[in-house]
Amino acid sequence: MADAEPGVVPAVEATADDIATMEIRGAATIADAAAAALATQADRSGAESPAAFRRHLRAAARTLYETRPTAVSLPNALRYVLRGMDGETVADLRASTIARAETFRRDLERAQETLGEIGANRLRDGDVVMTHCHSTDALACIDVALESGKAIEAIVKETRPRKQGHITARQLREWGVPVTVIVDNAARRYLDRVDHVLVGADSIAADGSVINKVGTSGLAVNARERGVPVMVAAQTIKLHPDTMTGHTVEIELRDEREVLSDEERATIIGKGDEDESAAEDDGLTVDNPAFDVTPARYVDAIVTERGQFPPESIVTLMRELFGETTDEPWTV
Amino acid sequence: MADAEPGVVPAVEATADDIATMEIRGAATIADAAAAALATQADRSGAESPAAFRRHLRAAARTLYETRPTAVSLPNALRYVLRGMDGETVADLRASTIARAETFRRDLERAQETLGEIGANRLRDGDVVMTHCHSTDALACIDVALESGKAIEAIVKETRPRKQGHITARQLREWGVPVTVIVDNAARRYLDRVDHVLVGADSIAADGSVINKVGTSGLAVNARERGVPVMVAAQTIKLHPDTMTGHTVEIELRDEREVLSDEERATIIGKGDEDESAAEDDGLTVDNPAFDVTPARYVDAIVTERGQFPPESIVTLMRELFGETTDEPWTV
Amino acid sequence: MADAEPGVVPAVEATADDIATMEIRGAATIADAAAAALATQADRSGAESPAAFRRHLRAAARTLYETRPTAVSLPNALRYVLRGMDGETVADLRASTIARAETFRRDLERAQETLGEIGANRLRDGDVVMTHCHSTDALACIDVALESGKAIEAIVKETRPRKQGHITARQLREWGVPVTVIVDNAARRYLDRVDHVLVGADSIAADGSVINKVGTSGLAVNARERGVPVMVAAQTIKLHPDTMTGHTVEIELRDEREVLSDEERATIIGKGDEDESAAEDDGLTVDNPAFDVTPARYVDAIVTERGQFPPESIVTLMRELFGETTDEPWTV
Amino acid sequence: MADAEPGVVPAVEATADDIATMEIRGAATIADAAAAALATQADRSGAESPAAFRRHLRAAARTLYETRPTAVSLPNALRYVLRGMDGETVADLRASTIARAETFRRDLERAQETLGEIGANRLRDGDVVMTHCHSTDALACIDVALESGKAIEAIVKETRPRKQGHITARQLREWGVPVTVIVDNAARRYLDRVDHVLVGADSIAADGSVINKVGTSGLAVNARERGVPVMVAAQTIKLHPDTMTGHTVEIELRDEREVLSDEERATIIGKGDEDESAAEDDGLTVDNPAFDVTPARYVDAIVTERGQFPPESIVTLMRELFGETTDEPWTV
Amino acid sequence: MADAEPGVVPAVEATADDIATMEIRGAATIADAAAAALATQADRSGAESPAAFRRHLRAAARTLYETRPTAVSLPNALRYVLRGMDGETVADLRASTIARAETFRRDLERAQETLGEIGANRLRDGDVVMTHCHSTDALACIDVALESGKAIEAIVKETRPRKQGHITARQLREWGVPVTVIVDNAARRYLDRVDHVLVGADSIAADGSVINKVGTSGLAVNARERGVPVMVAAQTIKLHPDTMTGHTVEIELRDEREVLSDEERATIIGKGDEDESAAEDDGLTVDNPAFDVTPARYVDAIVTERGQFPPESIVTLMRELFGETTDEPWTV
Amino acid sequence: MADAEPGVVPAVEATADDIATMEIRGAATIADAAAAALATQADRSGAESPAAFRRHLRAAARTLYETRPTAVSLPNALRYVLRGMDGETVADLRASTIARAETFRRDLERAQETLGEIGANRLRDGDVVMTHCHSTDALACIDVALESGKAIEAIVKETRPRKQGHITARQLREWGVPVTVIVDNAARRYLDRVDHVLVGADSIAADGSVINKVGTSGLAVNARERGVPVMVAAQTIKLHPDTMTGHTVEIELRDEREVLSDEERATIIGKGDEDESAAEDDGLTVDNPAFDVTPARYVDAIVTERGQFPPESIVTLMRELFGETTDEPWTV
Repeated sequence: MADAEPGVVPAVEATADDIATMEIRGAATIADAAAAALATQADRSGAESPAAFRRHLRAAARTLYETRPTAVSLPNALRYVLRGMDGETVADLRASTIARAETFRRDLERAQETLGEIGANRLRDGDVVMTHCHSTDALACIDVALESGKAIEAIVKETRPRKQGHITARQLREWGVPVTVIVDNAARRYLDRVDHVLVGADSIAADGSVINKVGTSGLAVNARERGVPVMVAAQTIKLHPDTMTGHTVEIELRDEREVLSDEERATIIGKGDEDESAAEDDGLTVDNPAFDVTPARYVDAIVTERGQFPPESIVTLMRELFGETTDEPWTV
Repeated sequence: MADAEPGVVPAVEATADDIATMEIRGAATIADAAAAALATQADRSGAESPAAFRRHLRAAARTLYETRPTAVSLPNALRYVLRGMDGETVADLRASTIARAETFRRDLERAQETLGEIGANRLRDGDVVMTHCHSTDALACIDVALESGKAIEAIVKETRPRKQGHITARQLREWGVPVTVIVDNAARRYLDRVDHVLVGADSIAADGSVINKVGTSGLAVNARERGVPVMVAAQTIKLHPDTMTGHTVEIELRDEREVLSDEERATIIGKGDEDESAAEDDGLTVDNPAFDVTPARYVDAIVTERGQFPPESIVTLMRELFGETTDEPWTV
Repeated sequence: MADAEPGVVPAVEATADDIATMEIRGAATIADAAAAALATQADRSGAESPAAFRRHLRAAARTLYETRPTAVSLPNALRYVLRGMDGETVADLRASTIARAETFRRDLERAQETLGEIGANRLRDGDVVMTHCHSTDALACIDVALESGKAIEAIVKETRPRKQGHITARQLREWGVPVTVIVDNAARRYLDRVDHVLVGADSIAADGSVINKVGTSGLAVNARERGVPVMVAAQTIKLHPDTMTGHTVEIELRDEREVLSDEERATIIGKGDEDESAAEDDGLTVDNPAFDVTPARYVDAIVTERGQFPPESIVTLMRELFGETTDEPWTV
Repeated sequence: MADAEPGVVPAVEATADDIATMEIRGAATIADAAAAALATQADRSGAESPAAFRRHLRAAARTLYETRPTAVSLPNALRYVLRGMDGETVADLRASTIARAETFRRDLERAQETLGEIGANRLRDGDVVMTHCHSTDALACIDVALESGKAIEAIVKETRPRKQGHITARQLREWGVPVTVIVDNAARRYLDRVDHVLVGADSIAADGSVINKVGTSGLAVNARERGVPVMVAAQTIKLHPDTMTGHTVEIELRDEREVLSDEERATIIGKGDEDESAAEDDGLTVDNPAFDVTPARYVDAIVTERGQFPPESIVTLMRELFGETTDEPWTV
Repeated sequence: MADAEPGVVPAVEATADDIATMEIRGAATIADAAAAALATQADRSGAESPAAFRRHLRAAARTLYETRPTAVSLPNALRYVLRGMDGETVADLRASTIARAETFRRDLERAQETLGEIGANRLRDGDVVMTHCHSTDALACIDVALESGKAIEAIVKETRPRKQGHITARQLREWGVPVTVIVDNAARRYLDRVDHVLVGADSIAADGSVINKVGTSGLAVNARERGVPVMVAAQTIKLHPDTMTGHTVEIELRDEREVLSDEERATIIGKGDEDESAAEDDGLTVDNPAFDVTPARYVDAIVTERGQFPPESIVTLMRELFGETTDEPWTV
Repeated sequence: MADAEPGVVPAVEATADDIATMEIRGAATIADAAAAALATQADRSGAESPAAFRRHLRAAARTLYETRPTAVSLPNALRYVLRGMDGETVADLRASTIARAETFRRDLERAQETLGEIGANRLRDGDVVMTHCHSTDALACIDVALESGKAIEAIVKETRPRKQGHITARQLREWGVPVTVIVDNAARRYLDRVDHVLVGADSIAADGSVINKVGTSGLAVNARERGVPVMVAAQTIKLHPDTMTGHTVEIELRDEREVLSDEERATIIGKGDEDESAAEDDGLTVDNPAFDVTPARYVDAIVTERGQFPPESIVTLMRELFGETTDEPWTV
């Protein structure tokens, strides 16, 4: 982290540190902490002029932003709060900013439950859902459906390489949902039994495409081919306003050992573990992308806490919540 | 195995035993042994009339057939040889049968290499191939392409649950082919770099559909969506004549531990290993189908040792090689 | 109907009765009456505080709503008017509510004609239109096109089970439009001659899907396959705001005798009319769904009195007209 | 019918008369009678030279052919039998022709049952089948499936205009099959519950397209869109060899009163029954095509008594059975 | 041009003349001049009442509009400025109108550059772009990508009949972009090497369809089939608000000599140049449409200076910028 | 050409020279000359043993083959004739070879007319045909249709770069066919008026794909999207038996000046004609592929003189005519 910006209160810097060191983690938790930090900054700001107040707030936002520039919920929280900073006096600016931060945090707190209610409405009694990876937003839809007395069954893809499907399966079993676990390769074979493909999202782009755990796009293409609708559950903090200006979402490549253990690698190369040159075979590459991009045309609905949307119209919600501007409000 | 059939020579019964006990295994090896056994039966038959000779040959075929009724190469070998049994005298019947068995075995011996030559012709210098599972027929195409001086690269899907992609990767690395290993979920993301999807087949049905390692059909659907042609390499002993009469190929469900270890299962159920009731959670099913069915319309070409065919015309080759009859020639 | 709500004026209750007894029927007529009733309630309200006024208005809305909770135009009218109730004093609240109701009613009165003008612009001189069922909104488009001097021909699907196509055909013949009547089964055969598929809507969902007379979705899929654009004519009172919160539209099952007369049923069961057990054959089911759901991707444009929209963006219009809220404003 | 041809025996002319007057009707019955007539002609021919024998046989075939030139099973029977007329002497010609006719008739007799066995193999226990129109070939598949102990359910489209679905429903109820009757418009809504669309064929063309009761093609397009395979059951006498030479099958337009009764017509025109000019409204056309054409790409398998085929390879079977020649063998 | 409208200042009429005589040409230049003229009108208006001011402004707009009623950027400029005319006094009306015109002109000046920045974000280092026709908006995207250090290659379709691809190729070569020129017919063959199809737009309709140089739609269909995304670069002055009311964009037919020279025509007709009747062969038509219509479903993103949008949501931007009204604000 | 082979008669060498120097050109003419040459070789062979005769015939074939190894009709003629060489004596071998060559030549002479009759059967009175490039096989279909009294109209794509569409247009105008000439880019816009896309073929591969003038594949994809069937007219000498063994057809790159004149090139590079370095801009490539490959799935029927075939079954005809063998029969 860069040197502290002038005017930024220590509590903001503390929060920034916690985000940077991943003590604060998870999309919603980060967003909540960032909004709280801006409220604190507004509350404690020593600025004596509206201009100084605005400058300090932007500095606080910048400080927070720079801790994790690729986490989409963080700039969303900052952008949302700063858009509500309004007034001609320091007092008005302070009050409006604090109120806006509170609105954001209150909405955020209720978002998953509201989203779950909306998503649950799409599920009918007796439906079979196929899941990919683990998403609390997606599970919230099932949770509410179960609570309203609907019987739901799940076919859970294990989701290599990290097999987060096991977490999903465990949660569903706790709720008493009948679960069938399959390898990802078996998905098409089971789609004929499925009423909904239900996934979460890492982020959602302005062109309506859904960035989610690798394998989502292949599943969505097969779901369309088999006539099964695809439903994406994602809170609005997952919307990715940068993509309004054409930015594509960078797909992280993760540790190749998730795909191939050292032992497996040595076997493929045809050398024993003891052979130190094993890892040096340049001809063997392992690629482990964390996410992939599902085009809007393979998604039937995106369920947010603000309602459900066809993916092609999500940009309208994005502009409404985070503004049209292509600039980052914390940029000097 | 049932009691020995009258007239069947001991060598045939020995072969049948070896097939039954899996001392003889692998589609080509079984087919070769079965044809050899019929030749031996023909050679050593004590039959004194053409009728008896025919009866004994059918009995020998039946004996062999019943060892592994679901292995497609076995009845193909039997059917092919019996179709060549021709003549009015025992001597003629004997000679024709032996000659037919020899033709079958000679063709079989050369089949993979010939297939490889044909398949290699589809590959151009510099092409990138995506593989699924491990198929010596598919690899034979790459082998010949490499021998003829073409540079080939491979993107190898690991192929859960058994990760036979590792075997493929190892073979390709031995040949010096640059290999990128990915999880199955990443396939669609990499298809844009791929010139051919190249897979083998467990068997091929009369409607042109391809039964192959689970995950093939989902890959083929995505390959079509991305504009990548799908090429299936399969010797003609993989053709499944029973399907001419509408039979569908039974898909075997394999050991669920390939998908979920006991430990993983216990974690999902939320019980410790020591808890004996863990395995008894009826609500958690694991399905592990070995194969799936790729419709003909997603396959661009089936490469056999008799040439390449659109999947929709493979039935013609099937009828030519194994006859139209819906009856099994060894049935009484 | 429940007991009268406190504060609700008798005229509102009278309207509610008329809607409940279907003296007032038809989407537009119901919506108009409901808006008028709210204006009357505003006009005659004895409320002495803004809070009481608002409470009484909501009570009036609830009273009206509960008469036909599944009629989409009714809550739309209520929601639209209540959204315009604004002010700090009873006088302001009264005035704004009455004005809003008048706006709604005036817009409604002109809606079909305006819609017709917009839809007519999509039709060119000499075009051939295929219709399904009977929709005055759809016919309004043809009407305006004819008035502006365009020659239009129609291929009219009879629309089993109730053959509302006959009503459409009669109207078109009155206007002098050349009509070809076909059974629904013949639609694909005639699509090559068709320039537009033109249908109405029972309601339109937030995901852009169109709920309309059963058979619409199958027609739309075939129209896409044949390269014929599908145009849906629907006033905005057909938009279904509940679907913004994920609710699916319940599809009514109608009298099975529309599908199968008692006589036909007896013949199928193989018993004479006199046989009283005929109707009791549990193995013979007749299903008569009134509507089906056409996914947004098979619809080219939705024509409303507020302009034409791609189905994927209709949710934006829905939010604009009826608010984002997932709550019903008449709920206590 | 033209004057009797020289050399044609009276029994042939009698058969020709019976076909012409529709005393002999139905695809299989006509084919059987025609083959029998050629055998009789061969048996009783007074020809004294091979050339005369051949001439007389061709004349007999021509006589039969001209009674119903559009019935596809009739020329198929004639063509098949004439192709087997072989030999250097009158005796040999006679014997070979009679034998060929017997083969044809014996095969024909068993064809539907064999076809049923093959088609039944595609059906699994518990499958739901959707039918269109009434086809004994299609029903034969269900019959055998039931006999082998499989539970089958049926969703029966009524099949306007003649509602032959009622005949299908009655037959299925006799066999105890649970039946749901729907109007044709409801088909897409029910396809999600369906495992197979199963139809017969009026005839099958060399390009693999299937001519069948109007509505088949629209159903097939929707079945593909919903991921449901389409299976056509058709004996080989339904193959249409004329189409090998590019001929398209003429689609008959049937009585418009099947679509619109006189009363319904009068109502549409807006005149009473008594008004004689009612029927004269030139602007109201009723089209009632009996069949439509389903392209090969929407059909998954054609099930015949000679096995199942992808539609794209049926031309091979056609050439095998009826010859490649573009000439009609009875043409002088 | 009609007689001068009362109250319209001479400078507006001068601008109108320049547009009419094409001294002022090009979508952006026309729009800029029209906005400037309205500002001048506002500045110099002699109106003494708000009503007169409004009337004069509308008259000025009408005068300008009627010079080129089919140029989409002209009414957009007028509509945008008139929508900003606001106030209760002449002074306020004047100030607001002038300010609005300035905003429009300032935005317009920066629009292409901003659009280029947004579009460039979609391009990655090393990407290959296929272009059709010549579009400065599309080129702006490449320009910014190059400036930011990305390597871009281009496959340039020549774009018959006028071969504007040559202009594109020349520009790209000036920038050092490696260019491959192909005939339009070769496009599909080269799509496998392409990462983006990048085109401009003549105008964009409310249903999301893109009107652009003839050949665009065929290219887009092939791009989808090959898995290549299609990106349309178009400033918001290309949005066509008339289409919100269902109007279709008239496609101009241009000089047939662009397609067929007189000499080529004579050769086809089979007559020498000297033969005066050559041009009179009624059986030989040459059609030269300037544009075609690409349906929204084949376009992945529309890049404007206000951000990128899925084509299905562009109507929202259209309504935001130019109003919902179906009336032309300059209409009396 | 290599040295004369022993035993090859001078007339064969003369024919080989004429083919090599392109005095003999055109697919049919070359095939005819080659078959005639083999007949002459057979007639004049001085071979005294069957083995020598066979050797000489193969040498003659090889001599002819090597003149134009990429012309598909040449090896087809040789292969067809050699397959008919049969017998135990020189006399029998001679007679059978000559007879086979005569059969080939007689069939070839009638092939286009027969093909035209078959293709014409697919065309109905009043149909509109869209053509690409110039194909006498395709035109033969129209010719026969016209002769049989059908009215046919044509939309003729000019077919850049060589504009062979003009030749097609001229021929059709001679026959009185109403012709509309369009640029290739306009094809999709006109497909709605078209009943058939009708093209020829350069060659046809075993996987059913059609190699034809560049632009065919893009047209076929658009035709499918618009619901227009694609019909390929090609004599069987266009079948490419090498592709049965996986060989892909090499696509020739032609003179880039067909695409870009020197003058146009100089303009793009931005240098005058006098500037000699103009042609040396390495960054400007012009690609001029002569053909492209249309996958089988976009072709509805291939019309040959042996009947029409779905593209997926053409391999069966290929094997029937030219044998299954992957070896060239003239190889030593």
